[in-house]
Amino acid sequence: MTVARISALRALLDERAIDAALISRTANKRYFSGFRLGDAEGAMSGFAGTLLVTRDVTLLVADSRYTEQAATEAPGWEIVATTGPIQEELPRLLLRYRIEALGMEAAVVTHADWTAVAEAAPGVELHAIDDELVPLRIRKSTEEVAAIGRACALTDACLGHLVEFVHAGMTEREVAWELQRWFRVNGAEGLAFEPIVLAGARAAMPHGRPSETPVERGNVLLIDFGCTIDGYRSDLTRTLFVGDVSADVRRWHDAVREAQQAAIDAIAVGVNGQDLDAIARRRIEAEGVEPYGHGLGHGIGLETHEPPRVRKSEASTLEAGMVFSVEPGIYVPGVAGIRIEDIVALEASGPRLLTNAPREALVIGR
Amino acid sequence: MTVARISALRALLDERAIDAALISRTANKRYFSGFRLGDAEGAMSGFAGTLLVTRDVTLLVADSRYTEQAATEAPGWEIVATTGPIQEELPRLLLRYRIEALGMEAAVVTHADWTAVAEAAPGVELHAIDDELVPLRIRKSTEEVAAIGRACALTDACLGHLVEFVHAGMTEREVAWELQRWFRVNGAEGLAFEPIVLAGARAAMPHGRPSETPVERGNVLLIDFGCTIDGYRSDLTRTLFVGDVSADVRRWHDAVREAQQAAIDAIAVGVNGQDLDAIARRRIEAEGVEPYGHGLGHGIGLETHEPPRVRKSEASTLEAGMVFSVEPGIYVPGVAGIRIEDIVALEASGPRLLTNAPREALVIGR
Repeated sequence: MTVARISALRALLDERAIDAALISRTANKRYFSGFRLGDAEGAMSGFAGTLLVTRDVTLLVADSRYTEQAATEAPGWEIVATTGPIQEELPRLLLRYRIEALGMEAAVVTHADWTAVAEAAPGVELHAIDDELVPLRIRKSTEEVAAIGRACALTDACLGHLVEFVHAGMTEREVAWELQRWFRVNGAEGLAFEPIVLAGARAAMPHGRPSETPVERGNVLLIDFGCTIDGYRSDLTRTLFVGDVSADVRRWHDAVREAQQAAIDAIAVGVNGQDLDAIARRRIEAEGVEPYGHGLGHGIGLETHEPPRVRKSEASTLEAGMVFSVEPGIYVPGVAGIRIEDIVALEASGPRLLTNAPREALVIGR
Repeated sequence: MTVARISALRALLDERAIDAALISRTANKRYFSGFRLGDAEGAMSGFAGTLLVTRDVTLLVADSRYTEQAATEAPGWEIVATTGPIQEELPRLLLRYRIEALGMEAAVVTHADWTAVAEAAPGVELHAIDDELVPLRIRKSTEEVAAIGRACALTDACLGHLVEFVHAGMTEREVAWELQRWFRVNGAEGLAFEPIVLAGARAAMPHGRPSETPVERGNVLLIDFGCTIDGYRSDLTRTLFVGDVSADVRRWHDAVREAQQAAIDAIAVGVNGQDLDAIARRRIEAEGVEPYGHGLGHGIGLETHEPPRVRKSEASTLEAGMVFSVEPGIYVPGVAGIRIEDIVALEASGPRLLTNAPREALVIGR
């Protein structure tokens, strides 16, 4: 599988007249070579574990922490052992392979590293190739959609478990822990991201962290979570009702659900993501409340958030093979927050939902 | 507490004749303001949650995902709501506060963001201030040492639990999961990093990830783990013997232990970290085996790995208030790996160990 991916990368180098690409983004390392780093590990690995792809060779630069792992996970790649920082090691390799124009990921490489390479290899032109790399991963292969689908199906099943398991009085952290335990026992590679579990008025924070706040009868419980299978991610949000909730909350939930459905109904090849966002936003504004301040959706794959972005501030043309979230919300500070999120795979014939948990309001702890 | 920290930051701005600092590193955001992001969240938050500290004001820039959280966690900070990327929002603020020279963290800010700010605010000088910020956090206050000590004590206790709990046949992942469960139940805020649990020959990978490999009788089990309490971290490694191990493994363990003890005995205010590394390395070389390819140690605090670095390739003068690891190792590919790691707080009178789990070989599953 990675052979075709490297060919696509080399075609891109040819087009841009660049001799080699230095691949630093954790997800791209896995995409091209199979080399796996954890989310937090990416930041700690520094230059180690970086790929250098020329027209003729595929090198995996690794310090002693990663050489054994690299040899196992990236067969076929030449492992180059390093000991020093990027500005000491890279110029040698550039010289050995006669690299005069090097593509780097400016949105991942720090300004300090970029500057250090520029100073240590003054004869080499550095080019930002982030935008050029995006098309390689933005449309998923059948195998990739299947992997995301497996992660989504497991997440649906986990939600089913949570609906039975959670009751009033349990803390947000207990719920977050239970879903993590469930994923582990049921075969996930890990979490796609730190789960968001927010009770009552706390659900008005779109990205709050689980706390010791208990799940309260008479208000909502927002759960935004996902898992990883074979590197691919899922992302699902449901806003549960804990017993009877106010008429306002029920009305807001209906509005969010209808906003999401209207957006999903409008998904088709060639549609602009901005238009989808506008459709959802309009439905919520019709309710007389402020719509969500975040985007309507984001691509998902080897990263939880990746292109395309489906949002107000940025045009995006939806194409077959894209997989992305649709997640409108209403947040009323001090009162409640409601978000419903599903993952859609866009096929030539139209959208197919990869998450299939019920989208009507689920009532727990009755 | 953060008031003194902001004063120190402003003094640094004065020295460098810089008008303001943009703080992007997750640990520095927490250090100066109390604003908390998870490890993986840091990368996802982008520009949101960034601090701007001028001589007169302390601003926390946040998009709608973070405004509520910021107001709660960083009282006293003015919350500036944003919707766009850094190059759209920042120039406005720089103009409003008449910032002509801005300090930024070049080792954290991506090259793309740095370039975007430079282009969007052409009249503003950008200065890398990473090195200048290091001294603020490198020597810990009494409260900080106490927080690291609490994390270390909990980690010692967790090891005590694992020694009872683990038995041959259990997988690396099961062990990793159990320690995470134990930390959670016993009051940790979270893990300091993804735990490294490696059985037998796999322990030769200094940074491998837990797998389905079972703990094997007759070989080692390496556990490298830590937790977070109030944002501060611990880091502890022990290499357990699973039943009877070979004479080679016992000898290597003795060598690593003696190398570590020799290095700890040499710790004092004013010592160069390179000399400590050389002491440990010499003891291992005397055994006729290759010493560790990584450094002897690293500072620890709000980040698991932070200055000072205690290693061969870099001079460092140890000062009172520094807290760092001492972790020599021997890795024999295909056979076994051994590492022993403890955390030391350097006081005026000498080193004090913050981790106190037994350092002699612990035998499990007999």
